[in-house]
Amino acid sequence: MTSIIDRLAENFSKFPGIGPRQAKRFVYHLLQQDSAYLGTLSQNILRLKKEINRCSKCFRYYPPIENYDELCELCRSNNRTKEMLMVVAKDTDIDSVEKSHAYDGLYFVLGGLIPLTENSPDQSIREKELLKRLEPVNGESKISEIIIAMPANTEGDHTTEYFENLLKNVYVQKNIKISKLGRGMSTGTELEYSDTSTITSALKNRT
Amino acid sequence: MTSIIDRLAENFSKFPGIGPRQAKRFVYHLLQQDSAYLGTLSQNILRLKKEINRCSKCFRYYPPIENYDELCELCRSNNRTKEMLMVVAKDTDIDSVEKSHAYDGLYFVLGGLIPLTENSPDQSIREKELLKRLEPVNGESKISEIIIAMPANTEGDHTTEYFENLLKNVYVQKNIKISKLGRGMSTGTELEYSDTSTITSALKNRT
Amino acid sequence: MTSIIDRLAENFSKFPGIGPRQAKRFVYHLLQQDSAYLGTLSQNILRLKKEINRCSKCFRYYPPIENYDELCELCRSNNRTKEMLMVVAKDTDIDSVEKSHAYDGLYFVLGGLIPLTENSPDQSIREKELLKRLEPVNGESKISEIIIAMPANTEGDHTTEYFENLLKNVYVQKNIKISKLGRGMSTGTELEYSDTSTITSALKNRT
Amino acid sequence: MTSIIDRLAENFSKFPGIGPRQAKRFVYHLLQQDSAYLGTLSQNILRLKKEINRCSKCFRYYPPIENYDELCELCRSNNRTKEMLMVVAKDTDIDSVEKSHAYDGLYFVLGGLIPLTENSPDQSIREKELLKRLEPVNGESKISEIIIAMPANTEGDHTTEYFENLLKNVYVQKNIKISKLGRGMSTGTELEYSDTSTITSALKNRT
Repeated sequence: MTSIIDRLAENFSKFPGIGPRQAKRFVYHLLQQDSAYLGTLSQNILRLKKEINRCSKCFRYYPPIENYDELCELCRSNNRTKEMLMVVAKDTDIDSVEKSHAYDGLYFVLGGLIPLTENSPDQSIREKELLKRLEPVNGESKISEIIIAMPANTEGDHTTEYFENLLKNVYVQKNIKISKLGRGMSTGTELEYSDTSTITSALKNRT
Repeated sequence: MTSIIDRLAENFSKFPGIGPRQAKRFVYHLLQQDSAYLGTLSQNILRLKKEINRCSKCFRYYPPIENYDELCELCRSNNRTKEMLMVVAKDTDIDSVEKSHAYDGLYFVLGGLIPLTENSPDQSIREKELLKRLEPVNGESKISEIIIAMPANTEGDHTTEYFENLLKNVYVQKNIKISKLGRGMSTGTELEYSDTSTITSALKNRT
Repeated sequence: MTSIIDRLAENFSKFPGIGPRQAKRFVYHLLQQDSAYLGTLSQNILRLKKEINRCSKCFRYYPPIENYDELCELCRSNNRTKEMLMVVAKDTDIDSVEKSHAYDGLYFVLGGLIPLTENSPDQSIREKELLKRLEPVNGESKISEIIIAMPANTEGDHTTEYFENLLKNVYVQKNIKISKLGRGMSTGTELEYSDTSTITSALKNRT
Repeated sequence: MTSIIDRLAENFSKFPGIGPRQAKRFVYHLLQQDSAYLGTLSQNILRLKKEINRCSKCFRYYPPIENYDELCELCRSNNRTKEMLMVVAKDTDIDSVEKSHAYDGLYFVLGGLIPLTENSPDQSIREKELLKRLEPVNGESKISEIIIAMPANTEGDHTTEYFENLLKNVYVQKNIKISKLGRGMSTGTELEYSDTSTITSALKNRT
């Protein structure tokens, strides 16, 4: 019979980026904590799914203020520009953009990227939900611009291209602008180590 | 009010080697699991301290087979050499030695190393418990050799030296041998990158 | 007396990024090559300074086609836009920009960055030469834009700021635009790991 | 026509561990040195093969004191134990062992390791030369022990095994001991991260 040490180490080894050795170190770390702490941690994990909803509009996880809220605080807010929608790959992208205070529109969490080996998204990516989100209400869409904000790598570009084509076909006639994040020098990069696409954009976007 | 997402991320950021960003990634990972899984993980954490004892003889954590066992399966075993005691810094060291099947004596978990800046161990290190462990029963000690098995680095050497002196003063008259792990080429090392102490030992211990 | 092995290793250990161990490995590598190869390498090093000039206009190193050329092939070319001048920190920056084919103006190699601890450049940075380069010929300057193309880090920003102020004071009245490379997502970056300044620029420069 | 910059960068990119980008950085580094320095470097490279011999006995590279020496200072020395021969893979291994002052016998440089995919050494490895080196002079061999001192990895073990078998067949009857470097904890290793073979040796060689 495997002990609870091994079973818990097995659980932790499923965490992103954690191997069996670090998983075991987590268990020994917990063994050295007092029972009250373990009680809190255990409770917090149990409460996670109960206290966190997935927003029915942007699909990010959020803590509802009142129990039966269906919308996260960003989608519910009156202080945000409802004309702009930023499509991101995952929840943590929203955290980064919010921290920058550079955007006050709405978001949509796609849930992943399209692998280079695939021509279209699988079930884990919310293509249908995005199209539904963009449907005009009473014949009218408030959205004037969709920013496809994928990572600046080959998978991100592949995903961007797919959704650009999809959305252009559907929305171009409706005067919705489809845009992408600007490329250029990001903090820490140098000309010497930059590729053609970064240099070209950095020159085009010079200020 | 901080949400359960932030509170759980805060918990995980206390795990060894985990920063705030990876802690948050753990939380989003858990949000994507189903409730049954979170229930199991939560239970396993809660059960950890309840199901795991600390052995009163070697101080390692262990799963007791019957509820009121005071000794771990290694200390209780009749198949192990009670004449040898290996003093290790932490629980996971025992796992590695057991996996090697190269040792069948008993262990003692010291609980840490003595920092270079200290001359003697602090409370977290079981000096008193070790001395008590070594006390003869009915005027007789079964132990004939103590292996001080610390890591081969400056802190490990410092700790070895402290306990070597301590134990030699107490036990030399009683015919207990105090030994240390042999040095030499460990798997993966090359002469070109080895220091004097490793090369000297590798030559001395040549076979 | 130190042998030629040690002396040559000492030479190589001065190469950028090379420690004494790798320097010695270089020497043993050369010992295993045939004499003809060493002859060529030795010759090439000797010829380097003889065959390479520093351009008197942009200060980059270049191979003169005819012996007494004073200008590099970029400064001499009739196919490049003389109205634009890109100020870079070092020679290899030019190689990267040229490889991108995104720019056809002229360059100026500053020779380094201003350390954060300094308010103004030291002798190694060609401030005077830059000012001289920008002097109008016959009362007229062909240059309409100067791109200050420093790396996107704190030292680069510090240097940019210094030269922006310097050049603005001197040239603003003369209708020369002073610009900087655009910031944004560079190849390989993700929203999750991006700082405020990169996200803000990526949004501002969205396309 | 490629310039001397490109040709020299091409030369440097053949150096062990150096890619095209670092090779180019080497060239720009040299361009910034004065001509006297380049002259010295160029000379030192040219003199390398002229001033350095390969010892006809141990096959290491060495600087001969008088022009027509055939033996390196180690093989020529009267202060070293001629009864012991350490077989190493490459020259730099000798430097490390000498630095440790733990050995005063003689050496033999094999020139490489046998790849795991091969059953026997190729031409680059001095098998024949080793056998010749071990031949008794006037019916008598001074050597009483051969230490096969390969790196502690799979290729090293493979090479050790090959030469152990070869030498045992030839020399076992002649009372020459064939030995290997001792294994154990090398500086920097910990029990937790050690493999079975290292732990087993560390226990066996405990002191």
